[in-house]
Amino acid sequence: MTPAAAGHRVEPRPRFARVAIVGLGLIGGSLALAARGAGVFGRVIGVGRSRANLDEGLTRGAIDEATDDAAAAVIGADLVVLGVPVASMTSVVRAMLPSLGADAIVTDVGSVKAPLVADLDELLAGHARFVGGHPIAGTERSGMAAAFGELFRGRCCVLTPSPRTDPAALAKVRSLWEAVGMRVVDMDAARHDRVLAMVSHLPHVVAYALAGEIEACEAAGEELVPFSAGGLKDFTRVAASDPALWRDIFTMNRDEVAAGIRAYRERLERLEGLIRDGRGDELREELERARSLRRRVES
Amino acid sequence: MTPAAAGHRVEPRPRFARVAIVGLGLIGGSLALAARGAGVFGRVIGVGRSRANLDEGLTRGAIDEATDDAAAAVIGADLVVLGVPVASMTSVVRAMLPSLGADAIVTDVGSVKAPLVADLDELLAGHARFVGGHPIAGTERSGMAAAFGELFRGRCCVLTPSPRTDPAALAKVRSLWEAVGMRVVDMDAARHDRVLAMVSHLPHVVAYALAGEIEACEAAGEELVPFSAGGLKDFTRVAASDPALWRDIFTMNRDEVAAGIRAYRERLERLEGLIRDGRGDELREELERARSLRRRVES
Repeated sequence: MTPAAAGHRVEPRPRFARVAIVGLGLIGGSLALAARGAGVFGRVIGVGRSRANLDEGLTRGAIDEATDDAAAAVIGADLVVLGVPVASMTSVVRAMLPSLGADAIVTDVGSVKAPLVADLDELLAGHARFVGGHPIAGTERSGMAAAFGELFRGRCCVLTPSPRTDPAALAKVRSLWEAVGMRVVDMDAARHDRVLAMVSHLPHVVAYALAGEIEACEAAGEELVPFSAGGLKDFTRVAASDPALWRDIFTMNRDEVAAGIRAYRERLERLEGLIRDGRGDELREELERARSLRRRVES
Repeated sequence: MTPAAAGHRVEPRPRFARVAIVGLGLIGGSLALAARGAGVFGRVIGVGRSRANLDEGLTRGAIDEATDDAAAAVIGADLVVLGVPVASMTSVVRAMLPSLGADAIVTDVGSVKAPLVADLDELLAGHARFVGGHPIAGTERSGMAAAFGELFRGRCCVLTPSPRTDPAALAKVRSLWEAVGMRVVDMDAARHDRVLAMVSHLPHVVAYALAGEIEACEAAGEELVPFSAGGLKDFTRVAASDPALWRDIFTMNRDEVAAGIRAYRERLERLEGLIRDGRGDELREELERARSLRRRVES
């Protein structure tokens, strides 16, 4: 007896016969590996500027073809995944517009959504079916060399449908991310940007600023690094993320990120006051409250 | 032929026949395990208030005897290691003063040195030989249950001799930390506190403040944690450190920690301005500089 005959309905997985992954970075490359493994991608064309990076994708079986020509790659594709940095998305899409099939689904993996979704909705109207998305997964590393198929498992993917989004395309993109192990949540693009500013963009600013401060002290002649312990290492790992990529994320989400930094600076100022004035009880309460977050992050 | 006869002089390891470890926490407990393993501790008496914690020390063979009476434990000890929180050091030492042998070496593992060394030098003068120390090692966990003998290997230990420090006692304490795998550096206590404020205390403030800010947003009804990724997890791990312990470290080193927070807030404000004004080139330069720290921290 097959599972279906036994009454266990097998959920139909999406099947994309021809997929163009434009930007074969950590996310695009990992998606190619994962979706291949899950059997939901047919032929995969990788698009990028670095030949070495594309060769890595070919060697590892993530892609079948490699090119630096996005317009050519998307011809006949039923799915186009935009994995380029957020600041490059619209120019990349503009170049491929004439080659897109009207029924093609275009989705992105950008870390900032509101300005991008507005631009791409506008740009792609009448050319293809656009679905904004953000698989919340990553490491401080980048490129196909850092890609791995398990990157998405158990993590959360946010999709940001707009009034212009085709429901059938949305459902297919949702099934794709589910097929590689993600929990998928629909969210307003503006709320996505507010949430990510706090849980991802602000932590990166905080880590870059700390590493920058230590670096400045060392440049001024104070020897610090030999005396560092575990805590600092965690920060420098986060601050090792690609500067060009994060500059673009910070500036594209500038209002939310700046608001987050401001609120954070006020909290630091308050802690500074409690420490300087030796107000131990209040200080301890603050630290206890902060510590309580961990239980929820870990679970 | 023995190594010595072959010309390879075997460095004499210190041998402490009777050791009292006052405060069997992560550091004290790990030292007991490591020094035991290195054959430099004879009989070890563990002192603490929690019976369960002491029992863990007995079970794991870290200590031979357990007591909550520091004064009794140090009778006949040639080495006393102070592993209690920094705020408890002087009161603990005061209680054991009448029982200390004049030749006994007393050393501490406190994360703040200048105020502590001044107090303990004064308090122990004529009672025992004091050497201020700080093995820079730790995790966010605490207690004997978190202790492990490899904690110190390859890490740095700072000793802070003062004009009152007996050179022979200093040499023996240095050999002890070397025996458990540490690089030992002598440093002025004030400089130690400035350095540790930057590489350890400030990173903890920064992590507590970020976790506190996210916690406050969640308490105000914004759902954030389900959308967090790796970066935030690193911070919440650091912010999971013992609040009472860190309150004491922050307030005991208040001038240096407050100065570090102030400088850090200014750097954040500068980043906030670059982000808000979209000054991408300068922003990228700042991020590149911050990132460059990693190579030195990792190496």
